[in-house]
Amino acid sequence: MKPIAITMGCPVGIGPEIILKYYLVQGNRHKNTVVIGDLEILQAQARHFNIDIPCSRWKPGDTVPQNSIAVYHKSALKPSELVWGAPDKTTGKAMAGYIETAVTLARKGDISAIVTCPITKTALQKAGYRYPGHTEMLADLCSAEKFTMMMAGPRLRITLVTIHCALTKVSPALTIERIKERIELTYTSLQQDFAIHTPRIGVAGLNPHAGESGIFGREEIEIIEPAISTLQKQGISVHGPMPPDTIFYKAAQGAYDAVVCMYHDQGLIPFKLLHFADGVNVTIGLPIVRTSVDHGTAYDIAGKGMAESTSLEAAVAMACDIAGNRTQGIQQ
Amino acid sequence: MKPIAITMGCPVGIGPEIILKYYLVQGNRHKNTVVIGDLEILQAQARHFNIDIPCSRWKPGDTVPQNSIAVYHKSALKPSELVWGAPDKTTGKAMAGYIETAVTLARKGDISAIVTCPITKTALQKAGYRYPGHTEMLADLCSAEKFTMMMAGPRLRITLVTIHCALTKVSPALTIERIKERIELTYTSLQQDFAIHTPRIGVAGLNPHAGESGIFGREEIEIIEPAISTLQKQGISVHGPMPPDTIFYKAAQGAYDAVVCMYHDQGLIPFKLLHFADGVNVTIGLPIVRTSVDHGTAYDIAGKGMAESTSLEAAVAMACDIAGNRTQGIQQ
Repeated sequence: MKPIAITMGCPVGIGPEIILKYYLVQGNRHKNTVVIGDLEILQAQARHFNIDIPCSRWKPGDTVPQNSIAVYHKSALKPSELVWGAPDKTTGKAMAGYIETAVTLARKGDISAIVTCPITKTALQKAGYRYPGHTEMLADLCSAEKFTMMMAGPRLRITLVTIHCALTKVSPALTIERIKERIELTYTSLQQDFAIHTPRIGVAGLNPHAGESGIFGREEIEIIEPAISTLQKQGISVHGPMPPDTIFYKAAQGAYDAVVCMYHDQGLIPFKLLHFADGVNVTIGLPIVRTSVDHGTAYDIAGKGMAESTSLEAAVAMACDIAGNRTQGIQQ
Repeated sequence: MKPIAITMGCPVGIGPEIILKYYLVQGNRHKNTVVIGDLEILQAQARHFNIDIPCSRWKPGDTVPQNSIAVYHKSALKPSELVWGAPDKTTGKAMAGYIETAVTLARKGDISAIVTCPITKTALQKAGYRYPGHTEMLADLCSAEKFTMMMAGPRLRITLVTIHCALTKVSPALTIERIKERIELTYTSLQQDFAIHTPRIGVAGLNPHAGESGIFGREEIEIIEPAISTLQKQGISVHGPMPPDTIFYKAAQGAYDAVVCMYHDQGLIPFKLLHFADGVNVTIGLPIVRTSVDHGTAYDIAGKGMAESTSLEAAVAMACDIAGNRTQGIQQ
């Protein structure tokens, strides 16, 4: 398999630190990863954090070295000019460049997956990019139209119909089409990314007790149920709308391979409760494999040596699994 | 300590069955419980389910027998006339009578707590009672004005500001006063019922990321935050509004003694994920101690021998703890 590439993320956030710690934790166990970032920044931070791992230049086609961090050097930042937690136009441009390079390599087949370290919208905008976030940038670079975030862990996988919107705006944003699209994306991803031949999907209702036959809201009857029944007629194993307060317990017990949720906290509350440390954010619907750590740039602790690499470890492992599954196709 | 009384609930639901199984599981370990119900129904169901425990008549003041189920016989239902899962006016009246008797005994000090088996609103209404539910009936019989449900388990306790309402109706129902009242009720209960000298309460936001400074909704700024700061000024250790997707993880790790939630599923999703089998519903704010099983009458499985007594076991144990704590006062 071609290497998995880790993009370095914001150079003044915790990205470089978690990469260094990732390699420290891995030792010699897993070295088919390369970093798309800045060699000198990584070296400077290794000295700063007193982490003794050499970094070496790598380019597509090279063998991945086993005794150093292979870096596809894509920027020319000066370590002495950077300030922890203070991104500017230069760091923003460098950070965006890592992502653009990663997408180019992934689409050419030089790398088998992209694992992204955190960026911030602010830094992206300082560099002149108008994307609302990381995922939208990746989707645009891949010309993907239908894509979404899946949060995946060993016990629970979730996707969201609405994401960053106020609770009062959730109901107006729900449409039969939108719910159908999310279920379909989830279904396809479970097959091709997670090698599940016949995925079983649970769909949460919007209201308490899934509306209890319309007593506590009619979205289940008017919007969610029609989306589900259309897909059931196409032979998809999709179930619901179910009472939100029991569906996640059932899914974690093995009843569903993923739960499609109506709003951010409906899915993120149970997901983080079960997978606070080992949850992975997977962008589904892209022609390339992309996973991400599930935390931010953490500017408040940047440079302090307090960041942990557990989420990056889980994201690399899952990217590796997904890339393998996509190559091998669905197990019959 | 005076006995803990278990009300039998709907005679044609799973109440009598879980009571019989409760005593079967307990063996001789814990016999300071009595049942307020119907002796003949319990005896008939013991035969039906092939459970070999004798039942005996008990009245306030009697010693609780150790080798039989002590029943305060409060109805004259005929076992042969009952149909599983089909409540009528007669069963409804009997069921309501158990509750009325229990409240009278608790207020007189003849019993130290009430643990209720499930009833249904339908059965209550057939018997001519106009209460929306069990809790409201108990509160009315106690003349309590401020009360609410707390769901409590070994790792998490939650209370809810809004309960059975459609998601679109949650935001309009939130007021500073209502949130303050719920926090105060929670605080008092943690002190007197759970013997926590200085309770730490977490309050969840309504919106994703607790609104992120107003970007995803302003309820945090305009309603929740003012309620919290007023109580903080009174010396209550209350924190928030916090991002809903992390507060429950933190609470389960020990950061808070209870979480005050804005809506049904915000609290019930994490609660049932952690405490599906051992969660207890406690009515806080009443002058008497009342816990309840956290399931319904389950008419679909009534009479089939499939019901389990785990929730009743947890509810009796918690009633016993709370009654003990109320008697002893707060540990200094």
